[in-house]
Amino acid sequence: MQVDHLGIAVRSLDDALAKFAPVVREKGSPPENVDAQGVRVSFLEVGESHLEFLEPLRPDTPVGRFLEKRGEGMHHLALRVPDVGEALRQVRSAGGRLIDEVPRIGARGRTVGFAHPTSFQGVLVEFVGVPP
Amino acid sequence: MQVDHLGIAVRSLDDALAKFAPVVREKGSPPENVDAQGVRVSFLEVGESHLEFLEPLRPDTPVGRFLEKRGEGMHHLALRVPDVGEALRQVRSAGGRLIDEVPRIGARGRTVGFAHPTSFQGVLVEFVGVPP
Repeated sequence: MQVDHLGIAVRSLDDALAKFAPVVREKGSPPENVDAQGVRVSFLEVGESHLEFLEPLRPDTPVGRFLEKRGEGMHHLALRVPDVGEALRQVRSAGGRLIDEVPRIGARGRTVGFAHPTSFQGVLVEFVGVPP
Repeated sequence: MQVDHLGIAVRSLDDALAKFAPVVREKGSPPENVDAQGVRVSFLEVGESHLEFLEPLRPDTPVGRFLEKRGEGMHHLALRVPDVGEALRQVRSAGGRLIDEVPRIGARGRTVGFAHPTSFQGVLVEFVGVPP
């Protein structure tokens, strides 16, 4: 098991990278639009993991509403798993709630699936499939 | 650079470990009191990083107030650095605010220092010294 990335909701990718990049001594990945989620994202490599900065494309999106309600900050924790569908089924069979009942395609073309924050002590957990 | 750990504020270490341990397939470390911070903590290994669960010892503590205000969830991001004092100085010289002006001793006997969340897009960043 590895932490694939930590998602951080920000108002501006440029401003966020200007703050974090010098500290982690890496350059951010070229920004990528994930239209299904209404976000523009950039990744910063930190060891075997990444920071994922999420800038909303519009206010009426999950990350736009998160910023409106809570301000900038940590948004989700992504764990690398061999099988996203199996990870989601395990959460459900343990009595947890899911956001995604089945895996879908997320940033970087990866298979992903989100559990509901009530399943993990208020932490929005994303499962990310390891590429073959 | 590595993510040393992700701190998660919880009401109960036992409840949190019961949820997260089966998912990351590891056992939590024996709980440790960090009296200076008013918390009881347990770590769960995830690859080269850890999840750190923080249960307040009393309501009138930083984590107790965090739970009161925001509920359970992600609390801070800890980055492993060779020199905590130098990392804090770099944040200050870049115009950022600090919580700890100088390093102090944190959980697991490590040297640590916190920057203020306003310095990093709402993320409470902790620097953790790598043991020699």
